[in-house]
Amino acid sequence: MFKNWEKAPKGERIDLADLLSQLKVTDEGLIPAIAQQQDTGEILMMAWMNRASIEETLATGQVCYWSRSRKTYWRKGESSGHRQKLKQMRVDCDGDTLLLLVDQQGPACHTNRRSCFFYMVDDKGATVESDPGSGL
Amino acid sequence: MFKNWEKAPKGERIDLADLLSQLKVTDEGLIPAIAQQQDTGEILMMAWMNRASIEETLATGQVCYWSRSRKTYWRKGESSGHRQKLKQMRVDCDGDTLLLLVDQQGPACHTNRRSCFFYMVDDKGATVESDPGSGL
Repeated sequence: MFKNWEKAPKGERIDLADLLSQLKVTDEGLIPAIAQQQDTGEILMMAWMNRASIEETLATGQVCYWSRSRKTYWRKGESSGHRQKLKQMRVDCDGDTLLLLVDQQGPACHTNRRSCFFYMVDDKGATVESDPGSGL
Repeated sequence: MFKNWEKAPKGERIDLADLLSQLKVTDEGLIPAIAQQQDTGEILMMAWMNRASIEETLATGQVCYWSRSRKTYWRKGESSGHRQKLKQMRVDCDGDTLLLLVDQQGPACHTNRRSCFFYMVDDKGATVESDPGSGL
């Protein structure tokens, strides 16, 4: 269906159940979700969602992922307080990636850096951009 | 090793071969790469890289992905002219996602929209944000 939908003009609507049923997910029913701070454009993290976590996130406005390591729902900030409020969800052209525009409270990274993408890579190696805890 | 590296202070260096050998890749040796327009912060697309395509991208400054559907290197813009010049590559805390800050020439999406993330999702469905071809 994404092959048909991509031809649609600006403003066309797609039903949520149709959209969710056509997402391209992994064998475990997961789709990657990029979290971007909505005002600064900073990329905070990437994690995974399943259909139920997408629906919960849309319903509550608080981002809920699926934790592949813990095999359970991961309501971002539930224990740390570093919650993500959803401002807008987007899907890409072929329906295999989500983009979450969020308001991130405090650091997004488990190292308490603001963003998870703190290694800057060049053709010789990588440089650590920020100190652990610097996002607090 | 990423578990050790994450404790490193700002400015610490990691050797490229060490970094690449520790990336968490899929069974096919792939890692997802988010492409972000470096000046506007717009998320353009997500695609996949393998070790050789990462090394080529760092060496040439032109982004080279691995196409999962065509099972070959995908030098972005080679046929369309819509090339991506690499400005900075980043890796996340657990080494399973890349972030590419790029200068995108023309549209990034195969629908000739500027970005692949043109479906805006809400709790009822999705709205197409832009017309096909609007990124030209």
